[in-house]
Amino acid sequence: MRKNYLLTPGPTPLPPQVCESMSRPIIHHRTPQFQAVLKEVAEGLKYIFQTAGDVYILTSSGTGAMEAAVINLLSPADTALCVQGGKFGERWAEICKAYGINAEIIDVEWGKAVSPQEIEKRLKANPKIKAVFTTLCETSTGVASDIEKIGSVVKNSDAVLVVDAISGLGAIDLKTDAWNVDICVSGSQKGLMLPPGLSFISVSLKAWEKINASKSPRYYFDLRAAKKAWDKTDTPFTPAITLVIALAEALKIMRQDGLENIFSRHKKMADATRAAMQALGLELFAPTAASDVVTAVKVPVGIDGEKLVKTMRDTYGVTIAGGQAELKGKVFRFAHMGFIEEFDIIAGISCLEKVLNQMKYKFDLGAGVKAAQEVFNG
Amino acid sequence: MRKNYLLTPGPTPLPPQVCESMSRPIIHHRTPQFQAVLKEVAEGLKYIFQTAGDVYILTSSGTGAMEAAVINLLSPADTALCVQGGKFGERWAEICKAYGINAEIIDVEWGKAVSPQEIEKRLKANPKIKAVFTTLCETSTGVASDIEKIGSVVKNSDAVLVVDAISGLGAIDLKTDAWNVDICVSGSQKGLMLPPGLSFISVSLKAWEKINASKSPRYYFDLRAAKKAWDKTDTPFTPAITLVIALAEALKIMRQDGLENIFSRHKKMADATRAAMQALGLELFAPTAASDVVTAVKVPVGIDGEKLVKTMRDTYGVTIAGGQAELKGKVFRFAHMGFIEEFDIIAGISCLEKVLNQMKYKFDLGAGVKAAQEVFNG
Repeated sequence: MRKNYLLTPGPTPLPPQVCESMSRPIIHHRTPQFQAVLKEVAEGLKYIFQTAGDVYILTSSGTGAMEAAVINLLSPADTALCVQGGKFGERWAEICKAYGINAEIIDVEWGKAVSPQEIEKRLKANPKIKAVFTTLCETSTGVASDIEKIGSVVKNSDAVLVVDAISGLGAIDLKTDAWNVDICVSGSQKGLMLPPGLSFISVSLKAWEKINASKSPRYYFDLRAAKKAWDKTDTPFTPAITLVIALAEALKIMRQDGLENIFSRHKKMADATRAAMQALGLELFAPTAASDVVTAVKVPVGIDGEKLVKTMRDTYGVTIAGGQAELKGKVFRFAHMGFIEEFDIIAGISCLEKVLNQMKYKFDLGAGVKAAQEVFNG
Repeated sequence: MRKNYLLTPGPTPLPPQVCESMSRPIIHHRTPQFQAVLKEVAEGLKYIFQTAGDVYILTSSGTGAMEAAVINLLSPADTALCVQGGKFGERWAEICKAYGINAEIIDVEWGKAVSPQEIEKRLKANPKIKAVFTTLCETSTGVASDIEKIGSVVKNSDAVLVVDAISGLGAIDLKTDAWNVDICVSGSQKGLMLPPGLSFISVSLKAWEKINASKSPRYYFDLRAAKKAWDKTDTPFTPAITLVIALAEALKIMRQDGLENIFSRHKKMADATRAAMQALGLELFAPTAASDVVTAVKVPVGIDGEKLVKTMRDTYGVTIAGGQAELKGKVFRFAHMGFIEEFDIIAGISCLEKVLNQMKYKFDLGAGVKAAQEVFNG
């Protein structure tokens, strides 16, 4: 017997209603039955994105929606400003480069958040910048950006603001319309409590102007085709039907909980996790701009970080994430996002303590769990 | 109470093992558990594709894999030969056009199959053609192409042969290696008995040469990235985990049945369906090149084709497909592909008879079912 606990920043655990919905006999996508589902999720996505505009569904990983944002907005030789302070921020510039778009980079130290003033400065210095690409929560470092302030800066320029909210949407606040986010992209396997396979993209009027003018080649990810189909409650290509039906179930749960409750649950879990790490004498990787989505923790001196994650997972069934790219072996990442709550966090911390103890790290057994309990019961 | 029967050319019904597998708690994709699944499906896909080479998995509709084939093989201003004799054949030229690739068209009359000699003639007339894009089974008309003969023609040229086998793979024979198919693309929701959301693409050595030379922009669908990850039993982006796990279940069933048995089951169902239609006095849309995947039938004079399909579906729960594009209202399409067998066909024909009878079409009630039974029991 081995029970599995998932505390990773995507995929996140699935609610039982979501699991059940995917085991139903499949229905055809061009039927009144499926159109009713599409109508329901269209409304639910607007609620989650906090937008009055449409949110299109793509059948792809989150990266597909990122590519859709880049190629629909910009033409070859256009200039974009890309904020990078982690593995996922770097992806924006990689996509731009693949399509011959000039990527001006703001290189943020990993573990720090970008300064909205820096974005303002860059926009003023180079009026040719047509789009600013940012990340809501940089999953590789656990850092959250101040999208509200960035939005207030970008809205005064001709550039559009694009936010990769793959990690974070539906877990921490992002007011697409009120914060002047022109394109918000997200994925299914994070705050939305679904398996991976769907991505989502909202588009403002300011963004549509650029989309209609873009000369970049596109077909599968052409947002003009997505809009044309969506206006008739349809998709241009066969959608991932079971995942869309599961999305309807997840959105039902989220609407019942309400965004405010969801955000405060995530904040509580993040506070508890951070308190636990500090009580264990561990150092947070991003103490000044920590997101409520995932907490990156420095691996203490003398401990093999990759072995820690591997032992928790392969011996005890508790999956957290290790470090990526330049942080490999240097941090571990403890996610508190999606269908996770208080007692999952306690379980995860208790497993972390068990393995740290076995690895001869010095700390008071139980101190992490107790610190988390104090937050949850405070 | 209303029971649903699915006789559409994608999605096709799901085996209970496939349904069940998608309701399991999700696992993380960068774990030994998931790598074991990837290894298993890598072998299973080679068996289904009848290739010794790797078959990559993309998280997208089948169209995504078609786009991957075009942009990975060809650079802007290159020339391709596109066979079009239906809605899906037209997609090849549309994708080429979107990426600035010259598409030379072979316009085949809808309902007829392309002549391999015509392809040979075109290749000889224009040595600049770098790729030939074809369709195994044109779902909109029910026509199957003679890929074996086409392959024997294309192999003598510098061009690569690309086959859209989205509809048909795992239902009718396609020997990727033996028939000299350089790129074979398929989707999950047809012969493979899965929900939509995954696509598959096999690549020959001849194709890899062109892929490494292509200058078309690409990121999400870059096959070089897919290969690099696949060589380490991984995917470049988060895959649709539940669908990959479901794929393992479907491939297990298919390997147990064996390709020969699967193909003969499909042939029997197609023969029975065609016999039933003729016994009802209905005319086949593609009598000379009918596939064993889906049968397109002309709507008889005086009958409203759209109403026929709608009544079968909305009143009786039996979903068949109507005509697409220029065939809207003029044909209906009765699929016999995937997790469908003898008694599903009988059920579907009996519903067709019920509605035709209600619509005052003149025929002997029971004649269609009986003709199908005779084939199944012959």
